[in-house]
Amino acid sequence: MKVLLIGASGTIGQGIASLLAPRHELVTAGRHSGQHRVDLTRQDSVEALLEAVGPLDAIVSAAGNLHFGPLGEMSAEQFNLGLQDKLLGQVRLALAGQHRLRDGGSITLTSGVLAIEPMRQAANATTVNAALEAFAGAAALELPRGLRLNVVSPTVLTESLPVYGSFFPGAESVSAARVALAYQRSVEGTQTGRVYRVM
Amino acid sequence: MKVLLIGASGTIGQGIASLLAPRHELVTAGRHSGQHRVDLTRQDSVEALLEAVGPLDAIVSAAGNLHFGPLGEMSAEQFNLGLQDKLLGQVRLALAGQHRLRDGGSITLTSGVLAIEPMRQAANATTVNAALEAFAGAAALELPRGLRLNVVSPTVLTESLPVYGSFFPGAESVSAARVALAYQRSVEGTQTGRVYRVM
Repeated sequence: MKVLLIGASGTIGQGIASLLAPRHELVTAGRHSGQHRVDLTRQDSVEALLEAVGPLDAIVSAAGNLHFGPLGEMSAEQFNLGLQDKLLGQVRLALAGQHRLRDGGSITLTSGVLAIEPMRQAANATTVNAALEAFAGAAALELPRGLRLNVVSPTVLTESLPVYGSFFPGAESVSAARVALAYQRSVEGTQTGRVYRVM
Repeated sequence: MKVLLIGASGTIGQGIASLLAPRHELVTAGRHSGQHRVDLTRQDSVEALLEAVGPLDAIVSAAGNLHFGPLGEMSAEQFNLGLQDKLLGQVRLALAGQHRLRDGGSITLTSGVLAIEPMRQAANATTVNAALEAFAGAAALELPRGLRLNVVSPTVLTESLPVYGSFFPGAESVSAARVALAYQRSVEGTQTGRVYRVM
């Protein structure tokens, strides 16, 4: 399969790339690195990327920023950062990508455990991740030509504990290598509208 | 209690107003009608409203627009309309409103059954409504001073069947009067982080 991976240089992205590169024709893209540059918050950037890479069998996104901070100090503008980046960025990729996939192709996006396990300072993350999971369920019902759309929802990564561990007190972490297996299940499997929780 | 109701002229809003007006000091606001004008998509408009009405015991929103249309023709720009209006508009009201509520006050927002029952042409609605429900669960955990935040999630209204009925084949509708009872439970009750489903 020809697989486009966005966010290939991130912790999850590296795990996905290691797993999928030996098995597929992997094309990588990212905001600052990868074979192609892309900014998911810009429509022209996403369209230019899809035009450059041509027809695909799978699109995988492990990209997107959120706002973390206390609810009592949160502004609507800050909240909108997560909506525009991790949520609408990935939705934009899916909406544009559906027209570039070969029959039976798949889209796999990334949410996160905060969708179902709210924590302090993470109201934006909970909202955005739950929104992505709901989007997958709804969008999958309308996709034609056997196209599929799933979301992988990992808990905190073992590799990210030094940075994000304080947001997840008592959480059991998972390795990026284990999270990557869920993307493989989505790309090579048959399910659609699924949330693959890795926790 | 002093209760601010946004969207008072809508079908749900009228039901809420009928139920709460005899029981509380009700202040109404809306985009085009009500005692005050407000546009939830504009920060200055929301702040001006809250400044004008003064300290409150409850804020109720039954306002917000979504994009409906086939996924295969949906643009990110169209998708963002629902994010900016029904989702971020109500989140903005909650974020600003938390600082204007008296101790023990409540915020009640509106999602909708599409959050958990996806239907054709409704990917934006499913995403936005699920996002609001997740936001309530997360935000409620951080609110101080006994403040509460809930969401009411109604199925299609009997009064709206002529307009929206085609989106909900086989759905059992509910009257606006019955939906209004859920807002009363949220405003006058003790629960927080709840989704009151009326279906």
